[in-house]
Amino acid sequence: MARWEPNARERLVRAALDLFAEQGYDATTVNEIADRAGLTKTTFFRHFPDKREVLFAGQGAHSRLLADAITAAPVSATPLEAVGAALDAITATFTDERREFSARLRPVIAGNSELQERAAFKRAGLAGAMADALRRRGVREPTASLAAEFGVRAFYDAFDEWADPANQRTCAELARHALDELRAAAAALDGQP
Amino acid sequence: MARWEPNARERLVRAALDLFAEQGYDATTVNEIADRAGLTKTTFFRHFPDKREVLFAGQGAHSRLLADAITAAPVSATPLEAVGAALDAITATFTDERREFSARLRPVIAGNSELQERAAFKRAGLAGAMADALRRRGVREPTASLAAEFGVRAFYDAFDEWADPANQRTCAELARHALDELRAAAAALDGQP
Repeated sequence: MARWEPNARERLVRAALDLFAEQGYDATTVNEIADRAGLTKTTFFRHFPDKREVLFAGQGAHSRLLADAITAAPVSATPLEAVGAALDAITATFTDERREFSARLRPVIAGNSELQERAAFKRAGLAGAMADALRRRGVREPTASLAAEFGVRAFYDAFDEWADPANQRTCAELARHALDELRAAAAALDGQP
Repeated sequence: MARWEPNARERLVRAALDLFAEQGYDATTVNEIADRAGLTKTTFFRHFPDKREVLFAGQGAHSRLLADAITAAPVSATPLEAVGAALDAITATFTDERREFSARLRPVIAGNSELQERAAFKRAGLAGAMADALRRRGVREPTASLAAEFGVRAFYDAFDEWADPANQRTCAELARHALDELRAAAAALDGQP
């Protein structure tokens, strides 16, 4: 039987980010990540299929959080109101403790095209999860996909601002503000620049 | 000096798609692609960095087409009108001859997560090129990014419909129609589902 390792998953994620930041993503091996975390390679592979997935481990949980909040929104909620509820749910998990981690994650992803691709795929996955949940509420296409796109856009914009060391606001406030800005921008699409 | 090979690039792209469709993307090597095209591995690597990029070789040209059309749109054009001009420019290159190729490309990409990731990255790149061009026209954020997102969304929706064997319409007509639908959907974002 596998030995239970307390917080193995989180320790592996932190060790991976430390090593990627110190010596680069390409130069880091799964063995090094496991070593740094004080765990074995076997434990690593019980949690992640490869070193890249360590940084995207939250995708499934994030997708479910977003979709569940949309499902739970009042029947009377408009598509963007349901998306706003999803943003409240996901940004609530971006606590102050996570901020330093997030700030260090950004340059690692920005510096590697493989990670950028994977990040774009995650983003598309989150949008897809929201669009599915909206369609289950009876929202038609392309409105459902568009509302979902507004949601991921607001979320990522908020996340980028939030992870900035100069920022003082909560991720939830920033996401709500970003969604309001997108609502206003949609009205300007057919206006003068 | 390198020998000039007529249509080497196109021959390699077609050979790659044939092999990916026949035996799968993972099972196909660069050597096999070059062989099938009647060319050498050296010629392959003069045109593409690896086998994956063969299917995304058009990204640079597509980005430029979109951006140039936005730049050339009348000063009076609204953001979405400039995006409409970009769609006209890019869809004009999706001729009947290209349709069969496009129809065969879709299941190859859909069947492989590495290719899906690369496709999502191309999509983000095309959106970025349009947003840059819109900002150079003085369109502010987030309106520029949003108009660009409407553009790629209309383009990909149109492309999917166009590549369907049952379709009778041109890619340009489908893209214009998709953009109009998105315009209407934007108005429904804060309405009842």
